[in-house]
Amino acid sequence: MQLVTLKAELADAPTADSFDLIDAPTPTCPEGGMLVRTVYLSLDPYIGSRIRGRHMGEGAPRPGHDPIPGAIVGQVLESKAAGFEKGDWIHSMEGGWQATCALDAAHARKIDANAAPLSAYTGVLGMPGLTAWAGITQLAKVRTGDTVLIDAAAGPVGGTAGQIARIKGASRIVGIAGGPQKCGMVTEQYGFDACIDYKQDGWKDALADALPDGLSVFFENVSGEMAMTALGHAQLYTRGILCGLVAGYQNKERAMHALDMGFIIGKRAQLFGLVVYDYYDRWDAFTAEASDWIKSGKLNFVEDRAEGLANAPALFEKLLGGKHIGKAIVQVTEE
Amino acid sequence: MQLVTLKAELADAPTADSFDLIDAPTPTCPEGGMLVRTVYLSLDPYIGSRIRGRHMGEGAPRPGHDPIPGAIVGQVLESKAAGFEKGDWIHSMEGGWQATCALDAAHARKIDANAAPLSAYTGVLGMPGLTAWAGITQLAKVRTGDTVLIDAAAGPVGGTAGQIARIKGASRIVGIAGGPQKCGMVTEQYGFDACIDYKQDGWKDALADALPDGLSVFFENVSGEMAMTALGHAQLYTRGILCGLVAGYQNKERAMHALDMGFIIGKRAQLFGLVVYDYYDRWDAFTAEASDWIKSGKLNFVEDRAEGLANAPALFEKLLGGKHIGKAIVQVTEE
Repeated sequence: MQLVTLKAELADAPTADSFDLIDAPTPTCPEGGMLVRTVYLSLDPYIGSRIRGRHMGEGAPRPGHDPIPGAIVGQVLESKAAGFEKGDWIHSMEGGWQATCALDAAHARKIDANAAPLSAYTGVLGMPGLTAWAGITQLAKVRTGDTVLIDAAAGPVGGTAGQIARIKGASRIVGIAGGPQKCGMVTEQYGFDACIDYKQDGWKDALADALPDGLSVFFENVSGEMAMTALGHAQLYTRGILCGLVAGYQNKERAMHALDMGFIIGKRAQLFGLVVYDYYDRWDAFTAEASDWIKSGKLNFVEDRAEGLANAPALFEKLLGGKHIGKAIVQVTEE
Repeated sequence: MQLVTLKAELADAPTADSFDLIDAPTPTCPEGGMLVRTVYLSLDPYIGSRIRGRHMGEGAPRPGHDPIPGAIVGQVLESKAAGFEKGDWIHSMEGGWQATCALDAAHARKIDANAAPLSAYTGVLGMPGLTAWAGITQLAKVRTGDTVLIDAAAGPVGGTAGQIARIKGASRIVGIAGGPQKCGMVTEQYGFDACIDYKQDGWKDALADALPDGLSVFFENVSGEMAMTALGHAQLYTRGILCGLVAGYQNKERAMHALDMGFIIGKRAQLFGLVVYDYYDRWDAFTAEASDWIKSGKLNFVEDRAEGLANAPALFEKLLGGKHIGKAIVQVTEE
């Protein structure tokens, strides 16, 4: 079967050339687990950090051998796990960039193929969506009247966070994204009230204009510097979700993303570190609720698709360079 | 009457020589206000920042003219304010370093001279105590089983915070303070389980030993660096109170106290900026509750007293140098 691995240990940020598509033996079905054919593969920025062994203490995959890690949506081919049968659809964070994967039952979550499009389980119903939901509803507890600022707003975390904030009653939602195409998507598809293009001169003035009464919640996906920009527009008692450091995932060195403690005190800010792992036990509940939002048209998503594992590396390079539009996914095979 | 003022605008951290004791006309009783004789004057670290115009946007006092700002406990000499009568005892954040002060009614709060020693209203029942209460009970919401780390633990904020944490059910309370005398006070008078002397070599190892299971709450009074040390011992989901930057109050330049956003995310920390102003409307409720704790011996306090306004500058220099032991107060005149 096909599998994508690293050519060599990474000295620098990965590019499409950092990967090899190789043939590997098809795994066998493990005791207590299952064999799954990969249909959709999710490409996410944290993988850029993880494949260098720098994400949450997890090991890096071995070049020339291990598949690149990644979440998948797939269908059970064979099961030795209670509760899973051949033909079931599952989502797993542990699938990886390979055509067929062997999974422990603990790493697979059954999904409802009728509740939403299957590919949505990689994005708006997947880890990015759960992240957005956790930050907006469980930590910031967005409520009627909030003004919410979200950066990396064209990404699946940011775009979903803004839409959930709207569902929860936020009165104004402002995004930050890179380039007019992304900004247009954020306001048109995701329904934000405004989206500021940080690649434009004078964007900080534009941001101030978009937040005439300041903000009461911010959702930070990019960097410490961006968090400080958000805090600069914060009302007193602002709740800030510290979620991602996308700006640093490609860097060679681990950088410190500094927040100014004096400024946090002066604003009486409340800051919440968010790691989505902590919410995995509530994934099914979230999926059920969010599927209804998708059906009723309150929650939209946009995809940037590649076809086939061979095209995964190029899309991943595009993702790390911020050149993708929407959730980056690879359709590995037909549904 | 006597009044202490700045000799000249401060170019550097103030010392005892930065101040002049001068004679000034006794103020008259303002309409809607009162005239108060100052009995206890509170000396607090934030004043070192405020007299250089660097605290919360408030203006600096004019050299040779304005009294140094400071909280007081005093007795009403004359009143033109509804609800205040001659002989009433009051606490005010706006009294200043002067023998007699004219106060708006909005800046005076009547206190019960029978509920607690009058001097306690400058410390454990005053702004430091309210700060401690707000952080421990309103923001961190300390509960049964918490392990709490508090720095500047020998100060009236830190010492009170630890004792309130104990009252609220914390199972282990560890302090950080400078020198064996302060550390002894923290464990003996304030009842902390341990206090680490940060002036000793190897204090970080001693801190680790004192927190074998990590900490669930920290109360930060000193600096960003100290907050990062606390985070280093944090369990996941630690609540951190960001309250003071005592380490920076004497500095010439405003320094950034940097917190590492990636580290906050990894720990899923919840950080709360605390400014005590926000809790002034709950001061009476706090005082009533805390007076009972004092009476029942659950809440202790230690004072470092000077006698007379002439001795205020020397005690203030001692305070800024961290050489005081207990709440720094000046007894301006007899009760």
